[in-house]
Amino acid sequence: MKMHTTKQSLGAALAGERRQGRTIGFVPTMGALHEGHVSLMRRARGENAVVVASIFVNPLQFAPTDDLARYPRSLEADAALAAEAGVDHLFAPEVAEMYPHGSIATRVDVGPIGDIGEGAWRPGFFAGVATVCCKLFHIVAPDRAYFGQKDAQQLAVIRQLVADLDLPLEIVGCPTVREPDGLALSSRNTYLDPEARRAAPALAAALMAARDAAASGEESAEELRWTVKTCLEAEPGIRLQYVDLFDADSFSARERLDGRGILAAAAYVGGTRLIDNVDVVPAALPAEVRGR
Amino acid sequence: MKMHTTKQSLGAALAGERRQGRTIGFVPTMGALHEGHVSLMRRARGENAVVVASIFVNPLQFAPTDDLARYPRSLEADAALAAEAGVDHLFAPEVAEMYPHGSIATRVDVGPIGDIGEGAWRPGFFAGVATVCCKLFHIVAPDRAYFGQKDAQQLAVIRQLVADLDLPLEIVGCPTVREPDGLALSSRNTYLDPEARRAAPALAAALMAARDAAASGEESAEELRWTVKTCLEAEPGIRLQYVDLFDADSFSARERLDGRGILAAAAYVGGTRLIDNVDVVPAALPAEVRGR
Repeated sequence: MKMHTTKQSLGAALAGERRQGRTIGFVPTMGALHEGHVSLMRRARGENAVVVASIFVNPLQFAPTDDLARYPRSLEADAALAAEAGVDHLFAPEVAEMYPHGSIATRVDVGPIGDIGEGAWRPGFFAGVATVCCKLFHIVAPDRAYFGQKDAQQLAVIRQLVADLDLPLEIVGCPTVREPDGLALSSRNTYLDPEARRAAPALAAALMAARDAAASGEESAEELRWTVKTCLEAEPGIRLQYVDLFDADSFSARERLDGRGILAAAAYVGGTRLIDNVDVVPAALPAEVRGR
Repeated sequence: MKMHTTKQSLGAALAGERRQGRTIGFVPTMGALHEGHVSLMRRARGENAVVVASIFVNPLQFAPTDDLARYPRSLEADAALAAEAGVDHLFAPEVAEMYPHGSIATRVDVGPIGDIGEGAWRPGFFAGVATVCCKLFHIVAPDRAYFGQKDAQQLAVIRQLVADLDLPLEIVGCPTVREPDGLALSSRNTYLDPEARRAAPALAAALMAARDAAASGEESAEELRWTVKTCLEAEPGIRLQYVDLFDADSFSARERLDGRGILAAAAYVGGTRLIDNVDVVPAALPAEVRGR
């Protein structure tokens, strides 16, 4: 695996790969790699001749009150994990390489999808994500890019970005990887102290209870929200921030489960903000659609 | 010259060109081609193995009160001019090909540069331009794209877009082409009736008078504006909308000419809104900088 810290070095290496007609799979990350990231890299490895991963903690997607300064950074361990997962080129630029003058004036505004769900609680977050992904897609020029379903709204934003701006690549969404007790893998799980770690799986359990309720015929978003809230009342270590139902394709908010949906939530576990989501499918949906 | 109305047809043709390692030059236009556009195509012809031009009247950059419906359209004559100028592939999509659902949610927001000059009078205009150029750059994937200095602020916006988003292409700015009497070529000149056509060159003449004042030592933007206004007072057929001084590189507004500048103006000639600009260079600047 080759490490690159400049666009020029990565660009020169990839130009060589492309001249030989090799397809490029790309996994953009913020580092602090875990088995979730590794699953994306393995998938990319299986589907492309060349695998590129990036590690860049993007300041543009952090609010001043967010955890930019203390976001976990572990480049050496990350590089070992990436190499083992089959990554050929690891791009790990400094902030000044991506934003030479400290920042940039241009923003990719994602429209209404950026103002709901996570976006309602993190203004500017999805514009920051879309902008840096646009930059990375231009730098890497991959055939396919891989994102986790764990960040379901981010995946929807990126799919919309690619379609709206005619970006010449395919977006591949990959299943959430969970701990044996159900907790979705996240770099921010390293923030959890033992008591918070014990409480954290209750978020996934509550979402799965609501998913089961939907499978049993519940179609009201209000009732599904109520199921999640009720489950979490039994766990005083967790404070729910929001739980909402979204359409699985457009990620527009839904008050009724009238097709494949995503029930997404954010919660504070101790001082740590975690997000998670589950697919919810109405019981009335034909089997071939349910199985998608 | 091959005509393409779909992204797929153009994409297939260009993939073939690219596989043979041929460089691609691109001239995006809104059609109603004139010698200004032709000069861009000839320049692209001289610098690239393949020349692509597009004709697309982009609804995203027109306000509801703008002239979208009556904007001049002349595809047959345009195709003849483009072929004669050496264009290999002409991309002329319908609106539904570029915006399949009528519009898109994503906008490329260009920041402060979009709120001054033309942007102050045409809110959303530069976001519309940047968004469609981003789409076209993704569809064509050119090595170089050609824009006229006539739309100086647009050229600055596109240069900023390419730098900020790491778009892998070179932007080439080309000189304004003028009628013998000084009027800058523009598709909107076709709107001018004989009386308006007679009055119109006064805009260029006024800007050139201010350029001469700068060359003679005038550095105050207020004085340069006053020169333009005074010149135009002698021509009752023209109503000046704005005239302002901008930095030639950043296109930030300037109250003093302290480096290479651009004096840009918009004016109504009869019912037609025309824009024009001239380079202004302070007399005090060293000769090698003045000559740039």
